[in-house]
Amino acid sequence: MSNANPLALIVGAGSGLSASLARKCAAAGMRVALAARDISKLNSLGKETGAALHACDAADARQVEALFSAIDAPDLVVYNPSYRIRGPFLGLDREEVRKTLTVTAYGGFLVAQAALKRMVERGRGSLFFTGASASVKGYAESAPFAMGKFALRGLAQSLAREFGPKNIHVAHFVIDGGIARSGGDPRASARGADGMLDPDAIAETYMSIHRQHRSAWSFEVDLRPWVEKF
Amino acid sequence: MSNANPLALIVGAGSGLSASLARKCAAAGMRVALAARDISKLNSLGKETGAALHACDAADARQVEALFSAIDAPDLVVYNPSYRIRGPFLGLDREEVRKTLTVTAYGGFLVAQAALKRMVERGRGSLFFTGASASVKGYAESAPFAMGKFALRGLAQSLAREFGPKNIHVAHFVIDGGIARSGGDPRASARGADGMLDPDAIAETYMSIHRQHRSAWSFEVDLRPWVEKF
Amino acid sequence: MSNANPLALIVGAGSGLSASLARKCAAAGMRVALAARDISKLNSLGKETGAALHACDAADARQVEALFSAIDAPDLVVYNPSYRIRGPFLGLDREEVRKTLTVTAYGGFLVAQAALKRMVERGRGSLFFTGASASVKGYAESAPFAMGKFALRGLAQSLAREFGPKNIHVAHFVIDGGIARSGGDPRASARGADGMLDPDAIAETYMSIHRQHRSAWSFEVDLRPWVEKF
Amino acid sequence: MSNANPLALIVGAGSGLSASLARKCAAAGMRVALAARDISKLNSLGKETGAALHACDAADARQVEALFSAIDAPDLVVYNPSYRIRGPFLGLDREEVRKTLTVTAYGGFLVAQAALKRMVERGRGSLFFTGASASVKGYAESAPFAMGKFALRGLAQSLAREFGPKNIHVAHFVIDGGIARSGGDPRASARGADGMLDPDAIAETYMSIHRQHRSAWSFEVDLRPWVEKF
Repeated sequence: MSNANPLALIVGAGSGLSASLARKCAAAGMRVALAARDISKLNSLGKETGAALHACDAADARQVEALFSAIDAPDLVVYNPSYRIRGPFLGLDREEVRKTLTVTAYGGFLVAQAALKRMVERGRGSLFFTGASASVKGYAESAPFAMGKFALRGLAQSLAREFGPKNIHVAHFVIDGGIARSGGDPRASARGADGMLDPDAIAETYMSIHRQHRSAWSFEVDLRPWVEKF
Repeated sequence: MSNANPLALIVGAGSGLSASLARKCAAAGMRVALAARDISKLNSLGKETGAALHACDAADARQVEALFSAIDAPDLVVYNPSYRIRGPFLGLDREEVRKTLTVTAYGGFLVAQAALKRMVERGRGSLFFTGASASVKGYAESAPFAMGKFALRGLAQSLAREFGPKNIHVAHFVIDGGIARSGGDPRASARGADGMLDPDAIAETYMSIHRQHRSAWSFEVDLRPWVEKF
Repeated sequence: MSNANPLALIVGAGSGLSASLARKCAAAGMRVALAARDISKLNSLGKETGAALHACDAADARQVEALFSAIDAPDLVVYNPSYRIRGPFLGLDREEVRKTLTVTAYGGFLVAQAALKRMVERGRGSLFFTGASASVKGYAESAPFAMGKFALRGLAQSLAREFGPKNIHVAHFVIDGGIARSGGDPRASARGADGMLDPDAIAETYMSIHRQHRSAWSFEVDLRPWVEKF
Repeated sequence: MSNANPLALIVGAGSGLSASLARKCAAAGMRVALAARDISKLNSLGKETGAALHACDAADARQVEALFSAIDAPDLVVYNPSYRIRGPFLGLDREEVRKTLTVTAYGGFLVAQAALKRMVERGRGSLFFTGASASVKGYAESAPFAMGKFALRGLAQSLAREFGPKNIHVAHFVIDGGIARSGGDPRASARGADGMLDPDAIAETYMSIHRQHRSAWSFEVDLRPWVEKF
């Protein structure tokens, strides 16, 4: 694959959605870069998709800068990282709450700033944020995750308004439901056929949103299994 | 094309979005049926796409029944009709307001009931509703259109919750901005390149939502030009 | 009470919220007019509060005109009427659906137009709409009510934007939960203490919103019991 | 005033809304505690309302603990602090963005945890959060403030769901517009009569929400001037 091929950067890469995204991007002729705090688990995915692996803590400004210095200007950046603690509010650990905000939202800011700088220079690009049902509804005993995901949505909305007219497509995805692991997820079978989100199916929608013509861009797209209560 | 090919029914067919949809459906190997109150303008589109034309006032229960009796069970139904009056609220004509509600929302109910009856029997189908920015925001001097489009969205939400678990994909599209006419729209050029929604681009997204795997269905998708204020 | 006292008109008056509102208004020194299709049940409330009773089908334009011709220009108008059918969507009766839209939303338009005409002439007034959780969420097997209540909310939003700057306070209340009947409601006790909305408590909030200074008006206020899931 | 009088704690006290709140609370027979990073400006307000002044950085866990150790269990806690930077996204300073999140949202978590611990022990209380239009809409060139205010709203929603059934009233206020300074604000006059929110008017609504009966609690209340565009 040549440097002329568009580059997709997936931040917060793991074995689920980001693996599917990496495969879809590679199949679409894109070069792929995968960034994660721990890249040791990504070796086989890297080989399969030809993706370059980058160790990066997305909540650390210097590491984010180093990541973007190490790659070409990306055409598509997806921000996935989140950290989640749950439980009765009065028992929550303060530092864990801070970490939830930092990983889920502040890291999104850092990656967005680095990505948009490159995209504005080239006059194009897509910047996608992965949200959850907690992005639009604050559930009991889950305040920190709601704080982080609400904040990420606020960031995405603001960026869509500022950078849309600069030809950069900012979108936010509300994933409402559990994501099944590839290759047969026992939790998924317990919920009946297709009762959890297939990561390939999510990735398919991300790709179709990335391919949208700029006269009709989506900002927010919700995704949930057919049987999900909402 | 054989009867084994899936059937798309576009209700409220005109020259813009529905023409693009008809072409996309035909190109995807679907049979197409176009329903409109006045089908005289649809002749060339009918020839081009092989679509059957059906005269039907979607706000009239008997005509809706007759339409569905005349066609096979559809795989995809799109409800587009709307009627719109604007102006200072105190000057609005009562019968025009009633008509706005009837065409924009009550017709959606009639078509949904007829469509879902067939889809439930077959255990599958997609039912899509075309909304507008007025679906989520009631603008000054535009109360009747807001009433109709809010109501249509309420209908769509309720149906998604009831019929999703019956394997029927109900989705609602928020079209935020003016739709350009095909073949060069002078209003569009005034707004700059791609400043109005290209109907082909909208149709492309409708098709990608129709093709979604049921483990990751979207209910609501917004679409607007890159330069649109929102 | 003299004609100089401000007038409150409650449309869709029954034994619950509107009775509480009538009492609060009377206690606040307002004259009260109660409009309902069937006023025979309102006799004792009329005597208690000194309210004038007006038979009026709010969905009938001529009756709404007659109502407003029979009363002085109101300072506060509350629109309560709704009609509700529920059940599996495929079994819904078309005329019942039409009636739901007409009573719940179109009647709101008729009353709003008559009320706002008088309020604009005097340069002041409050126009309040009673919504429900169905105003913001379309529940399964309850599409018609969602259509009507969504439409009423769209109306209210549009009117708030058009008539706020004319010194008329338009507000929409989302009543989320069952309203208890006065004097001990067996359904309420089953839900535990204060498990259903006390109509006096709702009316208290309506009055505090009516008394708001125009530099800080609320448009939308939700109300639900402390134990309600939402 | 005796220790039997209920206690209101206003965190993030300044000269605007919190001064009005302090006066309303004192007038309603409540003891008042004012917490702010810099309490030197609060001396005259303290004297006027009899309020105790507490120096406290709400984003510092130890200072928040010290604050709550120094006061009785509060009946009403209002969280006001926010920090705001604006400007083109690419030029935003990272540490300023972090500070925006920390002051606007993480401090809200710290205060909420300390307040709710006391309220749960006593089985009652009100915890109010002051939001802004940025709580529900992410404006261009204002991403950090949107992140902070969205996060605070997510926190408030989650807490309302968890602590409502514990008899604690959690509410979130969306202040949409500029708040006028008391005693004649030149910016306000430029916007016409009552074109900015009068802090006394806001405080009046906070008090009426605090007095709500628990069978009909509001979670979210918006407030804006009659002439405000929204």
